[in-house]
Amino acid sequence: MGFERRNIQGMEGYTPGEQPGDSNTIKLNTNENPYPPSPRVASAVREFSSASLRRYPPPMADQFREMAASRHGLNKDNIIATRGGDELLRLVITTFVDPGEVIAMTDPTYSLYPVLAQIQDCTTYKIPLETDWSLPRDFAEQVNASNAKLTFVVNPHAPSGYLIDGETIRNLAEDLNGIVLIDEAYVDFIDPRRGYDCLSLVTEYNNLIFLRTLSKGYSLAGLRFGYGIGNQELIQPILQKTRDSYNLDAFSQRIATAAFKDHDYARGTWQKVRDERDRISPLLRQLGLDPTASESNFLLVQLASDSSLTAKEIYEALKQQQILIRYFDQPRLLDKLRITVGSYGENEHLIAALRELL
Amino acid sequence: MGFERRNIQGMEGYTPGEQPGDSNTIKLNTNENPYPPSPRVASAVREFSSASLRRYPPPMADQFREMAASRHGLNKDNIIATRGGDELLRLVITTFVDPGEVIAMTDPTYSLYPVLAQIQDCTTYKIPLETDWSLPRDFAEQVNASNAKLTFVVNPHAPSGYLIDGETIRNLAEDLNGIVLIDEAYVDFIDPRRGYDCLSLVTEYNNLIFLRTLSKGYSLAGLRFGYGIGNQELIQPILQKTRDSYNLDAFSQRIATAAFKDHDYARGTWQKVRDERDRISPLLRQLGLDPTASESNFLLVQLASDSSLTAKEIYEALKQQQILIRYFDQPRLLDKLRITVGSYGENEHLIAALRELL
Repeated sequence: MGFERRNIQGMEGYTPGEQPGDSNTIKLNTNENPYPPSPRVASAVREFSSASLRRYPPPMADQFREMAASRHGLNKDNIIATRGGDELLRLVITTFVDPGEVIAMTDPTYSLYPVLAQIQDCTTYKIPLETDWSLPRDFAEQVNASNAKLTFVVNPHAPSGYLIDGETIRNLAEDLNGIVLIDEAYVDFIDPRRGYDCLSLVTEYNNLIFLRTLSKGYSLAGLRFGYGIGNQELIQPILQKTRDSYNLDAFSQRIATAAFKDHDYARGTWQKVRDERDRISPLLRQLGLDPTASESNFLLVQLASDSSLTAKEIYEALKQQQILIRYFDQPRLLDKLRITVGSYGENEHLIAALRELL
Repeated sequence: MGFERRNIQGMEGYTPGEQPGDSNTIKLNTNENPYPPSPRVASAVREFSSASLRRYPPPMADQFREMAASRHGLNKDNIIATRGGDELLRLVITTFVDPGEVIAMTDPTYSLYPVLAQIQDCTTYKIPLETDWSLPRDFAEQVNASNAKLTFVVNPHAPSGYLIDGETIRNLAEDLNGIVLIDEAYVDFIDPRRGYDCLSLVTEYNNLIFLRTLSKGYSLAGLRFGYGIGNQELIQPILQKTRDSYNLDAFSQRIATAAFKDHDYARGTWQKVRDERDRISPLLRQLGLDPTASESNFLLVQLASDSSLTAKEIYEALKQQQILIRYFDQPRLLDKLRITVGSYGENEHLIAALRELL
């Protein structure tokens, strides 16, 4: 491969979860919301003017940014809208991390982070989580000792669903010498009684940025729409300089705005997901698949040490029955499976199939 | 700006053409197609299932890639679909050009190229075009002497509309030591009697990649959909490694496919644009605004040396009348204006306003 940069030659791409074309598969492998998007999304699609596509879209997605700022009690200048959360991750690296610099992350974590680090020719520094998936006490010291320019922390954690509390987030912003990105892709599924909301910290700390996405909470994985919330010092250079001009098409801006406006509908789907999460957790435990306490829309289950089947075998047996869940071929996860919380019917199918198997 | 990389700190962002929110403005400043997209696009929007947005989109845009490959007589592996042409430009840099390396381009050219080079911390090497906007005879020698890893050539040229012939494109691929990207954003507006079609060269040269977009030719600037056509050695690492996973949402894949399929409709709009281009060129010349022979959907007009108004004054006077055209505040273009070819009615308005002014 004559022309590739050396770092690109030496890397493998990101492997997304399987996306089968058929509609019979019960898809519990990529954490999609089991409920359709708001009825207002359907109206917005129906009312969308195809003729308007002739012209360039609003370059800054101002309408969405204003709405998000108002919901979070912040200023429009604290918000950037992006093509899913993934574009924000890339842009934060592009804007702030030079090739050769260090990006810190937990181990395990979202598997896209090290891929993005490699594309920028950065060094990845991985810090193992504790047994209960919490951060080690000396996490900040380890990060600072590695000289990391940027740290990725996904909260609730993927793939475990473990939630770091707000005080710990504040301490990270306070203690880290570099930037910390808190990836809140699954934030909508946190039990509201936990009272988790850290966004106002961005006005206090100039090294703090949060990622949000409409993919899970608003049932819009197919739309590719997310946003970043951060101190202006972090948001403005991305907004004004490094993002692709016209990064968001006219349709997605319209649809995202319609979905985001219907907060009540989305909130209803979050509660249903939590109810199902609570319902199936003990059922899975009875089957010898012990779930981590999760504040997300998935459960990481641990096989009993005397399980007759391996995690991989369970994954494969379910796949044969057109039920997809996620198996990770990596240390610490070999005896675990990640199961997206589906609808009542999907979950019943899964439990029945597992009962058969185990 | 504490955390920005030095190259980002030192740069300014890309300035897109003005996008007024109102619909009364006659917009001849950003080269949008004056005709709406195909009626099949309207049907595809009506039939689009909002519920399908719940799931992740097809990650590789296979349906579009297969259709494009078949139209161009190439293999799917020679095609990558991207968020507008702009994403392809960025990805070619990301994949093949290390920070510090040289990117060559003509002067003048599409003003996004140097911005993307700065984001990657690359050096821009600009080679002045001849007076008639053709490449200098020793272009390849100059590029090779600069040690450029990548060369951007927009053909037809922006902002002049000048067309480089196929033999010259072949010679560039043959002679250049690095990669050459031929940006064919405006290719659809070339007079078919010119017989311009160079795409098959990608099977012969492993350093050649073409950019196409649906923004202009298919009246879909608001959709953000383009594609790259290149040797597999160039396409595959971008497709498999460096593009954002799920770079194209489900809606844009569906709409792009519908528009691209209706080739006849699009071709009809191209002919109408050419007819208008031919009609208004002599009218502009009569007004002392001499247009370069253009194979694109815009005309670069040169003011007479004894013009009573400067180009900037004309631009501003038209803007006051809600007619937007493009003025470039840069050497060689100060006494010129770029005018997008609009519909008959838009062009009549423009000519009438210019007649008043001049």
